[in-house]
Amino acid sequence: MGGHPFDDAIELHATQPGRMRGKTSPDWANMVGPFGGLTAAVLLRAIEEQPDRIGEPVSLTVNFAAPVADGDFDIATTAVRTNRTNQHWYAELSQGGDVKTTATAVFGARRDTWSDTEAPPLDVPGPDEIPPGGLHPIVVWARNYEMRYVDGAIPGREAAPAPSSVTTMWVRDQHSRGLDFAALTALSDIFYPRVFLRRGAVSPAGTISLTTYFHADGRDLAAVAGDYVLARAHANRFSRGYFDQSAQLWSRSGELLVTTHQVVYFKT
Amino acid sequence: MGGHPFDDAIELHATQPGRMRGKTSPDWANMVGPFGGLTAAVLLRAIEEQPDRIGEPVSLTVNFAAPVADGDFDIATTAVRTNRTNQHWYAELSQGGDVKTTATAVFGARRDTWSDTEAPPLDVPGPDEIPPGGLHPIVVWARNYEMRYVDGAIPGREAAPAPSSVTTMWVRDQHSRGLDFAALTALSDIFYPRVFLRRGAVSPAGTISLTTYFHADGRDLAAVAGDYVLARAHANRFSRGYFDQSAQLWSRSGELLVTTHQVVYFKT
Repeated sequence: MGGHPFDDAIELHATQPGRMRGKTSPDWANMVGPFGGLTAAVLLRAIEEQPDRIGEPVSLTVNFAAPVADGDFDIATTAVRTNRTNQHWYAELSQGGDVKTTATAVFGARRDTWSDTEAPPLDVPGPDEIPPGGLHPIVVWARNYEMRYVDGAIPGREAAPAPSSVTTMWVRDQHSRGLDFAALTALSDIFYPRVFLRRGAVSPAGTISLTTYFHADGRDLAAVAGDYVLARAHANRFSRGYFDQSAQLWSRSGELLVTTHQVVYFKT
Repeated sequence: MGGHPFDDAIELHATQPGRMRGKTSPDWANMVGPFGGLTAAVLLRAIEEQPDRIGEPVSLTVNFAAPVADGDFDIATTAVRTNRTNQHWYAELSQGGDVKTTATAVFGARRDTWSDTEAPPLDVPGPDEIPPGGLHPIVVWARNYEMRYVDGAIPGREAAPAPSSVTTMWVRDQHSRGLDFAALTALSDIFYPRVFLRRGAVSPAGTISLTTYFHADGRDLAAVAGDYVLARAHANRFSRGYFDQSAQLWSRSGELLVTTHQVVYFKT
């Protein structure tokens, strides 16, 4: 410990083959339990650290089954299937034998192929042209990020419902930690719930399932280093207590690093 | 057996608590193994049939770890966590002890809340104004569907690369089977790989991970019955052997039934 707050929070040690133990960090507290993006990052890191892991992350789905309590947690990882060029994983995070979070992941070898980014680049002002924003400091985990909202800032006290659920922001690590797959995973959950924006008010809401597709490789991420990432999210449908959200994370140089999707429970 | 081809193909019988056995159906064959959408539907159905299952599907992620061989398969389901209003599942499909497919799912109770469909409705001609299209009859599973392409039909022999990966189609069950969650799950994988369209040619490609968010409930689906569903898919980025795809499935009356995402392995 004593390093960067993100590295401290995702630090794990092996207790036996395929089993690791970690500890929640007060720096990453959310309203109930830790920031979901951090929990997702811990699960990805647990798989990354397995000695038989091959390749880099291609996709990750994390299901938030119950709140993680403050304190120690255990992660069990299983390489369900290893193929020639990819590998399928299942992981469970538990506390006292109670499963709190599950994950499936695909890791794979990347190779040169025809490539194209079809999603249109986002045409927005640079981060230096936008004042710092973010979430209320009561949201402890958000203090780890510098956020600059291009549009769709979190609604304030007197806010009206917004017709669009789009939020676009520049975000970077507050302590200039370099980007890697774990950090990108956490950023996939950087957006406050879209229902807040549409309703113009904060209400109970929590991510149930988070899926991230990694388009960049480790070398691309190292090149981004601690620079800003451009993040945009929108919802498609709010219905009967659930809504979905899709988002993109771009490097400042215009590379689409990640597309990420989630379904969120909400009350109104 | 002897019922509708889809019902025959997803028919399962319990072998012990949490374990079910099924059999691949020649009607649903793909180039290698069965149609991925059918495999996803079988996994969903296995969970639906568990006596301790609560609520309806909210999200499903299926990871295709290895081809399913013709013949019997076993599905093991585990209710990882049961909460008051939702339930988290893990399932594995295996053959001879070899895991071929994994799935995580969230089921939940739905309740009336503020609702809104933010995704703009698709403005397209009705199915009766479009000639039947679909895939080459060599693709056996596709014979179970009537497809009518609004745009983005599968490229023929002399096709040129297309600048857009969008395919929009009306699709319905060839035998007028009613819509339910299993059928919607299969439809989430109805699109041929987007890389074919962009490259103007068929090439090796296969879905690795498929996530579906269910916005409709069982009553909504019963109302659609055997009518056409409007399906649109697009890709965001093709890079180093993988691309992602996002899609929407709408009822003819304009209800967004499902948003669905996948990451696909490809060679060029």
